[in-house]
Amino acid sequence: MPQTPADLTARLKPLQKRVREVGHDAVLVINPVDTRYLTGFVGDDSWTLVPARGTKVVVLSDARFEEQIAREAPHVAAVMRKKSLVDELKTLRDRRKLGRVAVQKGSLTVDRFEAIKKGLGARAVAAWDDGLMTQRAVKDAGEVKLIAKAGKIQQQAFRELRAFIEPGQTEAEVAAFLEYRMRCLGADGVSFPSIVAADANAALPHAIPGRTKLKKNGLVLIDWGAKFNGYCSDMTRVVFLGKGPSARMKEVYRVVLDAQLAGIAACRPGTPLRAVDAAARKVIDDAGYGEHFGHGLGHGIGLDIHEDPRLSHLADEHAVLEPGQVVTVEPGVYLPGVGGVRIEDDVLITARGHRVLTDLPKSFESATI
Amino acid sequence: MPQTPADLTARLKPLQKRVREVGHDAVLVINPVDTRYLTGFVGDDSWTLVPARGTKVVVLSDARFEEQIAREAPHVAAVMRKKSLVDELKTLRDRRKLGRVAVQKGSLTVDRFEAIKKGLGARAVAAWDDGLMTQRAVKDAGEVKLIAKAGKIQQQAFRELRAFIEPGQTEAEVAAFLEYRMRCLGADGVSFPSIVAADANAALPHAIPGRTKLKKNGLVLIDWGAKFNGYCSDMTRVVFLGKGPSARMKEVYRVVLDAQLAGIAACRPGTPLRAVDAAARKVIDDAGYGEHFGHGLGHGIGLDIHEDPRLSHLADEHAVLEPGQVVTVEPGVYLPGVGGVRIEDDVLITARGHRVLTDLPKSFESATI
Repeated sequence: MPQTPADLTARLKPLQKRVREVGHDAVLVINPVDTRYLTGFVGDDSWTLVPARGTKVVVLSDARFEEQIAREAPHVAAVMRKKSLVDELKTLRDRRKLGRVAVQKGSLTVDRFEAIKKGLGARAVAAWDDGLMTQRAVKDAGEVKLIAKAGKIQQQAFRELRAFIEPGQTEAEVAAFLEYRMRCLGADGVSFPSIVAADANAALPHAIPGRTKLKKNGLVLIDWGAKFNGYCSDMTRVVFLGKGPSARMKEVYRVVLDAQLAGIAACRPGTPLRAVDAAARKVIDDAGYGEHFGHGLGHGIGLDIHEDPRLSHLADEHAVLEPGQVVTVEPGVYLPGVGGVRIEDDVLITARGHRVLTDLPKSFESATI
Repeated sequence: MPQTPADLTARLKPLQKRVREVGHDAVLVINPVDTRYLTGFVGDDSWTLVPARGTKVVVLSDARFEEQIAREAPHVAAVMRKKSLVDELKTLRDRRKLGRVAVQKGSLTVDRFEAIKKGLGARAVAAWDDGLMTQRAVKDAGEVKLIAKAGKIQQQAFRELRAFIEPGQTEAEVAAFLEYRMRCLGADGVSFPSIVAADANAALPHAIPGRTKLKKNGLVLIDWGAKFNGYCSDMTRVVFLGKGPSARMKEVYRVVLDAQLAGIAACRPGTPLRAVDAAARKVIDDAGYGEHFGHGLGHGIGLDIHEDPRLSHLADEHAVLEPGQVVTVEPGVYLPGVGGVRIEDDVLITARGHRVLTDLPKSFESATI
């Protein structure tokens, strides 16, 4: 399911419109993920110049990527640089007679901006909010398919893990197995470093899998994701080995699951991002665990594992969900020194409501292995 | 082999000296890898404030990381933010009565800088070249041990791969096997996405492993690395399956190996970075393949997979190798549509010369499986 050149060219149009609206002549894309989104080329140390009009996109790259660009983005022009990126940009700007070039503000570091201004002249460049983060938050049909496919891969690997996992294994071994199976099932790789956290380690929302062994009658929190053709999926499940953990942690599981279902139910176009977060948070607050849910409810996924929109009580109060956005819904409760539960699925916002893209069982009963 | 608080505190001193020299009162570290280097805390979405004097380092983070900071960096103060990072920074600056706070210029984006200036006042902050990239390029003994350990893990996985690999497997399967074994052998994960490129794909220096199958009597280029306690190793080997490829590619192998040995031989303190690149490049030029070696000779490795120094003909002409630096030496020759060869090892610069940290066989004979 590669993106077609037509898909890619369609993505240029809204960007070019924004460039023209502010009166710039071109935008310099320096974030490699945006270059992939706009051209199909998957590489780094390269810049993409998108003119305000027309389809003459130029990738400034180097000899390492020459053949790769020809394969992945045959429809763009490519310059294999012989000098610095800034000097090549200057040459290109002069040749194209471009007035002012806007540079992606959210990716542009202060020192790089200084170098570009020095090379092209301070008036020839402007740091600019390109709006791609907002544009990329709304996925086209091809992108949704890729995210869903990544989800299918990660779910199949988890099913195989359920037959494999047992007390005595280390967290790292479990992570290795999951990642190996995702790769064999066709993933590009992981969409982020897997979290496999046994018992008390599960109280760390971002635990790094280590040498801690899985215990008989213990709890394991697993937060993992596959990448497929560049697109990320992201899920969390908690499993109980044998009799599982204490009655308290079992209660926590039920609370978190109820909260997650409430969060998913709140996902529909027009709902404020804050309200989605609040719908899940209320369930946890009401159960008395509010102080133990210290992160936002979820985030957009796509070519990056963390994209807009952010489902959080800190979100802009006017920001709402839109059709085509794909978000994680992942409430959690963490009891320091004891353990933690987080349950996470990927949810597509549709014209009228939502569709959950991931469907591994998550009932309390299904958690026990 | 965790870093001790004493190791970490020692790293603050040169940074603090540089802060004082330019008259700032503190430096705000916003690059998460630098936070790890300076404090031991491995997380993101967090900023670290290092005062110009004393040891009162503060990590501004959020509830997700509370327990993790307590475990990984118990010697630092931590603030779990209730408001935005900028607002928390303002509170901290006021409480500590700090005048001007310098922010890492190489990691600071233009939009973030604007937000910080808006919050604290434009005069209260300055974008500053903190010198950490240069400082981090020189490793202490503990860091060298971690890089060497990562190298041992990746080498052991490769030995196991030699017994596993055979024609008919896909590039992706080979990558999956290598990555699985590195994990099982104790790696945190990969230090970068593995490159496994069969035959003509090996002409792409940054090939992504795909569904291409390994051929009988074919060539496979493998560029892979392990991460151990955060530190990266990085190697490339080429293997010939059965009779291997054409006589021409075999000649290329011998040329690249000679070039790599010449590059390694040139590694000693005081040698200009350009001269190290030139030593290897001359061998390839003399053999008539100069136009097919389109990248630099190597790069530093450490907590990041690409660090200073860069061994390149574009390097600053006055920059030289220094004891404690660890670099890759990785010449390559790529023939479009045919194949490519790259051979890469990790080299520590010592007081009098160098020590090669990786030692998998690389003779022409050893390449055949």
